[in-house]
Amino acid sequence: MNSARQYHRFPATLTLRRGGVLERPTIAYETWGRLNARRDNAVLIFTGLSPSAHAASSPVDPSTGWWEEIVGPCRPIDTNRYFVICVNSLGSCFGSTGPASIEPKTNEAYRLTFPVLTLEDVAVGGKAVVDALGIESLHSVVGPSMGGMTALAFAAQFPDTARSLVLISTGLRSLPHAISLRSLQREMIRRDPDWRDGRYAGDGPVTGMRLARKLGMITYRSGKEWEQRFGRERIPGERPTGDPFAPEFEIESYLEHHAQKFTGSFDANCYLYLSRASDLFDFAEHGVTMQAAARRIQADRILVVGVESDFLFRIEQQRELADVFTAAGKRVTLVELDSIQGHDSFLVDMDRFRPVLSRFFNGDWSTLAATA
Amino acid sequence: MNSARQYHRFPATLTLRRGGVLERPTIAYETWGRLNARRDNAVLIFTGLSPSAHAASSPVDPSTGWWEEIVGPCRPIDTNRYFVICVNSLGSCFGSTGPASIEPKTNEAYRLTFPVLTLEDVAVGGKAVVDALGIESLHSVVGPSMGGMTALAFAAQFPDTARSLVLISTGLRSLPHAISLRSLQREMIRRDPDWRDGRYAGDGPVTGMRLARKLGMITYRSGKEWEQRFGRERIPGERPTGDPFAPEFEIESYLEHHAQKFTGSFDANCYLYLSRASDLFDFAEHGVTMQAAARRIQADRILVVGVESDFLFRIEQQRELADVFTAAGKRVTLVELDSIQGHDSFLVDMDRFRPVLSRFFNGDWSTLAATA
Repeated sequence: MNSARQYHRFPATLTLRRGGVLERPTIAYETWGRLNARRDNAVLIFTGLSPSAHAASSPVDPSTGWWEEIVGPCRPIDTNRYFVICVNSLGSCFGSTGPASIEPKTNEAYRLTFPVLTLEDVAVGGKAVVDALGIESLHSVVGPSMGGMTALAFAAQFPDTARSLVLISTGLRSLPHAISLRSLQREMIRRDPDWRDGRYAGDGPVTGMRLARKLGMITYRSGKEWEQRFGRERIPGERPTGDPFAPEFEIESYLEHHAQKFTGSFDANCYLYLSRASDLFDFAEHGVTMQAAARRIQADRILVVGVESDFLFRIEQQRELADVFTAAGKRVTLVELDSIQGHDSFLVDMDRFRPVLSRFFNGDWSTLAATA
Repeated sequence: MNSARQYHRFPATLTLRRGGVLERPTIAYETWGRLNARRDNAVLIFTGLSPSAHAASSPVDPSTGWWEEIVGPCRPIDTNRYFVICVNSLGSCFGSTGPASIEPKTNEAYRLTFPVLTLEDVAVGGKAVVDALGIESLHSVVGPSMGGMTALAFAAQFPDTARSLVLISTGLRSLPHAISLRSLQREMIRRDPDWRDGRYAGDGPVTGMRLARKLGMITYRSGKEWEQRFGRERIPGERPTGDPFAPEFEIESYLEHHAQKFTGSFDANCYLYLSRASDLFDFAEHGVTMQAAARRIQADRILVVGVESDFLFRIEQQRELADVFTAAGKRVTLVELDSIQGHDSFLVDMDRFRPVLSRFFNGDWSTLAATA
């Protein structure tokens, strides 16, 4: 079925990795294309922190998806050929159970009573959907950013399910620089008096969310891109008098615009849980060593795509990913792209990402490395 | 005189670059060493955003200075040979007139009635001290970070005063990435309810200042350094229960420690003004083109020192500085250091900075480039 949002409800309680139990949680997902007779053409996509399961438009939901140019008929992940599944992360707020959901027992939102979330739990949510669809073997698990770490968590926990992995602008674990940035974003939200220890009404800590989003934008893009786009351009028109710190540069206005767009669209507590889940991820927890963890995974075709200007998941982390899986005996292709849009390149630099993903999903392994 | 803090008071009102007048402002400064008979051995140091004029200890004030290992007898800027002056920036809060100072007319603190500040105004403060000391020609003007842009503002406005420039981890102008970071830091402070539109009592917006300092620390250091120092080390001991977002990683505790140390030591409004002054700086305002501005300056020996891991003033900006002055016919030495401590390297990576500055101030020009 090519449909808008669908839901899978766990048949029983779900115990999370760090303890804590959810009462029959729900995972929202969307699918595109058709499962073939051998049920072996499915591709599972995990998302970054903030997107929903709506990766691409469909006849039922024609609104533009977050990866519209990558997923669809005759697109790089070709839905004429593949059955594509995208899940909304457990802990998020677009249909899957998360801190903003109503707890059945109390009939109130979980808020901070939601258990500590890990990306391993998010991966379990994806596996439940795959099982419910009657799929035993996936062609591929794909994940950009946080979704890449979730794909690794999936492969580590269900080593026989995926035949290949596509890991984009991600890492084997969260490093202190990224942890410090996310920790600061969380603090901005938690220090907003409107957060009220998570018990806010309505949109809640709008100021904190705006600040956190601005810091997000700064870490998702690159200095070089902004220098080309904005330079020192000033906001046209008269400056308001009486405020010596009023926005004066175009870059300030750009950030404000993006911050405004974000607030109200994402629940603050969900953001906090998913942000912390990213910090907690460490692939090394799945084996005595990183390589031991990598060796256990059956997928033998692994594509790692990184961007030189990425500040959040540095290119060195992509190289480390490739090294660990190569040493574990996998067939790894590392593609380093010179996009200037930083971490967000997989969302915006389609001219560079399209050919890489096209060749991978066409099976053109030999020409893959040449696309960089 | 080798003394603790001294003060120069302007004999008349001072009109700032963007308009607005200060009633006989004061500039605090310290000096080390002795002015020679020809009065030509003076070195003027401008600071980064937050330090005082106390660059180094002295018999009168033995407390450790912010550049203790660089300034002093037998140190790279050798006070047995040079007469060293360090000024506290106009707009700061360590003795110089700034937003926290009392306005003589009203007998109340300036706060947001302080006029818009530029680094050109800060440079004028330094020039007033130099004039008051009876110095017509400086051996050198030295500035790291914001101080480097102030040194450029000094040279542009007083092109015949300095015979050489030492520009460290700085740039010809503020670029949008740095502007966006500082703009966000200011917003963190201004969104703190305790800021009260600048009319706070006591320490004021402590939360906003803590957040801003943490973001500062993140941009002053490098991911590589933190990976080596902290990795994914956990804070020892039991985690507090009931707070799913309590600090868990050593890097979070490190940032908290630095943030605590900073708040209370720097006035929030002064921080806002100096931060905005940094955004506003553009050397190109001093000529029809950058090169025309560079050609006007008489200093013909220019040392540019940059750090590869600097995220706030990227190494490309150091190369641009060197290129512009080289094209203007100056003798430029560009030294690129592979320090891993990012922008803060000039404060902490003394093993790399000491030899570069030693050779420059010894006149060992020929070996200077080899120190990188």
